[in-house]
Parts: sequence; C-alpha cells; structure tokens
Amino acid sequence: MSGSAERVARAGLIQLAEPNDARLAQFVERVGAVEALSAIRSASAPLPGVEHYRSRLPGLAAEATLERAAGAGVRLLIPGDLEWPTQLSDLLLPGGGGDRAAAPPLGLWARGIGHLRLAAARSAAIVGARAATSYGTHVAAELAAGLCSGHGFSVFSGGAFGIDAAAHRGALAVGGMTVAVLACGVDVPYPRGNAALFDRIIGEGLLVSELPPGCPPSRSRFLDRNRLIAALTPATVVVEAAARSGALNTSNWADRLGRSVLATPGPVTSALSRGVHRQIQLGAAALVTCADDVAQAVTSLGEQFARVGDLLAADQADRLAVRRPGDQLDPVALRVFDALPGSGTCSLAELGVLAGLSVELVAQRMIQLEQLGYAEPDGDRFRLGRLVVEARSRERSRAPGGVREA
Amino acid sequence: MSGSAERVARAGLIQLAEPNDARLAQFVERVGAVEALSAIRSASAPLPGVEHYRSRLPGLAAEATLERAAGAGVRLLIPGDLEWPTQLSDLLLPGGGGDRAAAPPLGLWARGIGHLRLAAARSAAIVGARAATSYGTHVAAELAAGLCSGHGFSVFSGGAFGIDAAAHRGALAVGGMTVAVLACGVDVPYPRGNAALFDRIIGEGLLVSELPPGCPPSRSRFLDRNRLIAALTPATVVVEAAARSGALNTSNWADRLGRSVLATPGPVTSALSRGVHRQIQLGAAALVTCADDVAQAVTSLGEQFARVGDLLAADQADRLAVRRPGDQLDPVALRVFDALPGSGTCSLAELGVLAGLSVELVAQRMIQLEQLGYAEPDGDRFRLGRLVVEARSRERSRAPGGVREA
Repeated sequence: MSGSAERVARAGLIQLAEPNDARLAQFVERVGAVEALSAIRSASAPLPGVEHYRSRLPGLAAEATLERAAGAGVRLLIPGDLEWPTQLSDLLLPGGGGDRAAAPPLGLWARGIGHLRLAAARSAAIVGARAATSYGTHVAAELAAGLCSGHGFSVFSGGAFGIDAAAHRGALAVGGMTVAVLACGVDVPYPRGNAALFDRIIGEGLLVSELPPGCPPSRSRFLDRNRLIAALTPATVVVEAAARSGALNTSNWADRLGRSVLATPGPVTSALSRGVHRQIQLGAAALVTCADDVAQAVTSLGEQFARVGDLLAADQADRLAVRRPGDQLDPVALRVFDALPGSGTCSLAELGVLAGLSVELVAQRMIQLEQLGYAEPDGDRFRLGRLVVEARSRERSRAPGGVREA
Repeated sequence: MSGSAERVARAGLIQLAEPNDARLAQFVERVGAVEALSAIRSASAPLPGVEHYRSRLPGLAAEATLERAAGAGVRLLIPGDLEWPTQLSDLLLPGGGGDRAAAPPLGLWARGIGHLRLAAARSAAIVGARAATSYGTHVAAELAAGLCSGHGFSVFSGGAFGIDAAAHRGALAVGGMTVAVLACGVDVPYPRGNAALFDRIIGEGLLVSELPPGCPPSRSRFLDRNRLIAALTPATVVVEAAARSGALNTSNWADRLGRSVLATPGPVTSALSRGVHRQIQLGAAALVTCADDVAQAVTSLGEQFARVGDLLAADQADRLAVRRPGDQLDPVALRVFDALPGSGTCSLAELGVLAGLSVELVAQRMIQLEQLGYAEPDGDRFRLGRLVVEARSRERSRAPGGVREA
C-alpha cells in the first residue's frame, strides 16, 4: 500500500485537488489511489465535478515532483508508512449541523528530521493570535519549553507570527521537537519573516503540509490546515485569541475530533484574551496555566495516543530489523546507520570515516537516528538502538537459518 | 419580635458570645432572645459551657451600649426588622464533612445611610487578596463601578486593603451603594489606613458587623465575617487570590450556601491569580470578565433575591404608611421626612426651614430618605416617595374613617 505506485498516485491526486476534499477522499478510500487517479484520467470516476480535477491533469507531474522533492529533502508521507499518524483517520467526519464534512489528507509532505508519528504520539498543539501581546508570546514559549523539557512532548503549531512562532521557538530553545503544519508547500517560507525559523525547524524539527511543494497559502487552505493541527495532537491549547480569532477555528476542530481543548487565561483587560475567556465560560475549553496542567489533560485523554506510541515502538523494532529503513531515512542518514556496528560503540569521528562523511553531517543525522530509535548515545559514543538490537535478535530466533542484518 | 426587649436581649447576647456560635443561635431560635439571656443569667440554659457566657455577664451593659451606639449613628438590626436580610437564615448550617456548623448572626450593628436588606437584594460581593496587584485593584474597581452604574447593584466587601478597598472605592466613584462587612466594631477603623474610606462609606453606604461597637478584629472573627459576606449576597466574585488566600474562604462559604461563586482570571504569570485559576479549573468558580458577566450570573441565581426586593417594597410601603418610620430613621432624618408635604414638592432650603435644620443636614439625610423610598427627587425639589403615597392611599381606602398621616 505504501509502495511506489500508490505514492505516485497520491502525489498526483494531491496536485489535482484542494485540501480536505471529502468526496475525493472517500472515493480514494474505496477504490485506492491508483485506481482513483486512473478513473479521473479516463473521466469514469463517479465524482461530481470530475472535470474540475481533469482540468488540472495537463499540469500533472507527480513523479517529477516526488523526485525534485526528494532532492530537496522533502518526503511524501502516505497511509501505510511507518511515519503516517493513524489518528488522521479520525478526520473522516460527515458534515451536518453547520459543520462541513471533513477528510484525512491524501498524503503529507514532510521536511525535516522529525518523525511525524512519533512526534504526534506525545504532543500538544499551541495556537493563538498572530497579533499576540508580549504576555501571550511569553506564555506560549514557556508552555512549549515546559512541555518539551519537562514532559517529553512535541509541540505542534501553524508557523504563523505571534503565538505560533513563539511556541515553535519555545520548543527549539530547550532542544525540543516542534512541528509546523503549513497551509502552503513546505518549501514556501510563508510568512517570509519566519523564514529563518522554518530553516531551524527543518534542521531540528519538522515542516508538514498537505499541499505540494511550491503551493502558496490561501484563506481556505489555512482553515483546512487547522484541522490537521487539531487531528494530529491529543490536545490543542489556545493561548491568546480575540473574540473572533482563527485560533478558535483550530480549537473547534479539536472539539469536533474529541481532542482536549485547553486555553490559557489572561488579563480581562486584554482584548486578545477575550476569545479565550469566552471559550472557558462556554465550557468549550478547559483552563490551563502551565505545562503541568496541559500534560495532565493530555495524559487523561491521550493514553490511546501514548499506547499507539508504544505499539509503534514494538512494531517499528520489527520493521527496523527486517527492512532497510530506506523509507524513513535519507541516503546520508542511511549511510550513518549502516556504519553503526552490530555491537559496541563508535564515536562520531569513527562513523564519519566508516561512512565516508564529514563529522558535521554524521552529527546532524545522528539526531534523527536517535529520535527514530535507530541509534542510542553512550557517553560521547553511539550504539545501535536497543529496539533494533532486540528486533534483530527476535528475528534471529524466529528464523535461525536466515539471519538478516539491516 | 423587633420590640425593645428583644433588641436589648440580642445586644446582650452578642456581647456574651463570639460570632457564629451555632449552639447559642439554635437555643435563641428555640426560646427567643429574652428567654435565652435570662436562662444564661440564671445558669439554667442547657448550653455546654454556659459558664463561659456567664463569666462575661458582669461586663454586660446592653442598654447602655444601644444608647451610646444610637448617639453615634449606630443601629442594631435584628430579625423582624424591615432592614433585616432574611437570607441570613440560610446560615443555619449543620457541620460535618470537614465543614463547621454555622449560624446566622444574632444581630447586625449597622452604621451609615444604606438600607441593608434593600442593598443586599440586588448585590454582589467582590473580594480578594489584600496584597493585590495594580491589575487586580483595577479589575475590582471596574467591576464594582460597572455593577453599580450599569446594573443597579450594591457592592459588598470586607473593608480590607487591596481588592476589598478597590471594590468599595469603585462603587463610591460612580455614586453607588457599597457595604463593608467588618470583623470588628463598626466604630473601629481597622485597618487604620482605610479610616477615610470607612468615613466615606458611612456617609454614602453602610458599615455592618455582628461584633458590638468597640470590638477589635481577630483571625477567627475575619473567618466568621466571611460567612456574612457570602450569605448576604447572591454572588461572590473573587478577583485576585494566591493559592491559599483568605478570599477563597469567602467563596467556600458562598458555595456552601448555594450562592454563585465567580472569579476573574488574570495573567498565568501572576501568583495572585493562581488561587483564582485553580478555583475555575476545579469547577468551584465560574469565570467572569466584566460586570455584565456578573449581572448575568446573579440574575439567573438571584431572582429569588430580586423577588424579595419587590415584596419588600410593597411590604415597606404599607409599613411606611401606618407606622412612623422611627425604627429605620435617625431623629434628624425623621424630622426631614416629617417636613415633606403630603402632596407637592419642597426645595432643600424650604425643608430646612420647615424642619429647623441646616440645608447641609437636610441634603445629607435626603440621600437616605431617597434610598429607602421615603422621598423622591423632582428636578431640584423633593416629594414624598411614591410607595408612601400609594400606601397611604391604600390605607385610607381600607379605613375611610381613620386616615392616618405619618
């Protein structure tokens, strides 16, 4: 399912449709991406407005896009990938009662060293006003830093000015994992003023978008993006929001998806806390004041997510053992991984010699390998990840005649 | 029941006991104040520790106290008085589950122009930290001013530094009615720094205490005082409170009494908002941001109180007509009232001549007469209150042969 034809077809479908196209998503769910794309090509797809998709066919270049993307360090995640966050299927929501129908993304373009599914398994979204106050950005940064350093959370946000940027920066400030879910291509620095922040997130975290590289943002894309932030995380914290803020759109999605909706209060004299206070008054959001409050709220609701994380770890261990982790690692990271000895440890310099790479490149990729469980630190040196070792030994005991080394 | 013997007996019992003496209150409830006092005198009262009360008998001087108090503009309100807030009987609470038993006060010493029952009928308590921030005092003052000017509320508080004083001042700033419920005699300026504020409250609002004139405050008296603030008002708003603030004691009483417990949030970075946020998180307090929010919360819960106010007004009208309002008015106010013509209007100067009083004294007492419904303004002039006129006319129609003029 995660094979190359499926990936190419999904890359193509993403180019033909706008995000959150519930009818297309349901069709793909039913017949598969390859079949869906060919049905659109042959105009036989039972989709209202199929001509709309067909009108974009001439510009379709899925394989070329995937290739160019890979060259730029951009990967397309699709259902079935180890890194695919399965909780996105919660987005299959019928419309009604004033709510639009919703759909999971057909795929997610990702750029950076983070592992989306692992990051999301223990995470919170921190969102809020772009025109935030210094109080709001302080609170967002403190929350993010506290969640990362004190609770091992990843922090998701939307990469916008104000609260979003403060949340990403707060996570990065303590060496935490942060994921920016964008409403444009992961190679489009929007807003331009956050370009340096995005570069830092690529190096230490993850940029994610359901829009193909090169796509500009639009108002509807921002709103559809909000559903992803809400769906990926067990809890959304609104830090500052005026009475009719876009941040409340994200918290509405979170509420619809059964996620925790949390909010930090502020001075009643601040217009930017008005929307937040209203949510708390209506019982639509629970009041939180600190990272501990958020972690507690997430623990009660997020246990299923945490279990997903555990299952994933065991599952991943087996996969790591029997498959070359090419789907997950870029070629450079793969060379570093291959250079790790079956037992014992190596220094970064030794790995550099073994892999034929500079120490800087080895050090950079080692962060990724550690996060994915492929490697573990041992003082200044590194060894194969425990899960890899255990899975290889399970594999050996299951098939004594056919030991495979990754 | 509100006759002189009862009042003297209650003044005496108040001198013998500490506030919130549930056993004494129950005994008085059963046998009446006069009988209870004489049973204590004769040592026949079935009260544990009756000797404790008897030890204070030698200092007892209820009549002298009442007389001296009247001279100083201090009156003793007791159950049965028109001005007695009947909701105080809600304080008859059994103990248990960590809660102390509670009792209504045996009487309340009052000083000022306010009418306690009318003031309490449409009111909110605003309480909070003594060591308040400038944010907190700003919010308390704004809330109080908004409740008085925008919603016709009276504002109750405890006369302490910080939030309490800001609430009283906010009410006074817009010409509103404010009531300070003290933990010491109404002639004891505690804290001394609020002495000028208390003077202003006497002139424009009301000081109330269950402790006799001259009594100093104590820690237990503060805590017992808090139950009165909670019981008198349909809602208590906590503006700022550290994690273990005394203000939370008042809100606990309010909760126990089935009153609304409200709280204004603040910056999560402020230690003085910590207790408030905790209350909201626990569901022990509802978040309010402005006077409108408070008024809305009070309207839903306080309708019974408002109805009390309406009933009171009709009831009062009858009493005003058939009785000289000597229980409610000091001799100077009574002279001003008597000088008002049965129909038509008078200027302050004319009333001064008719009553033989300075214009200043007439003007001062007119505020009280207006608030109690005895008089109404008509441009620069004044007439008899509508309720008095209506009640007198009802009285005339009921007893055509015996018209009585107040």
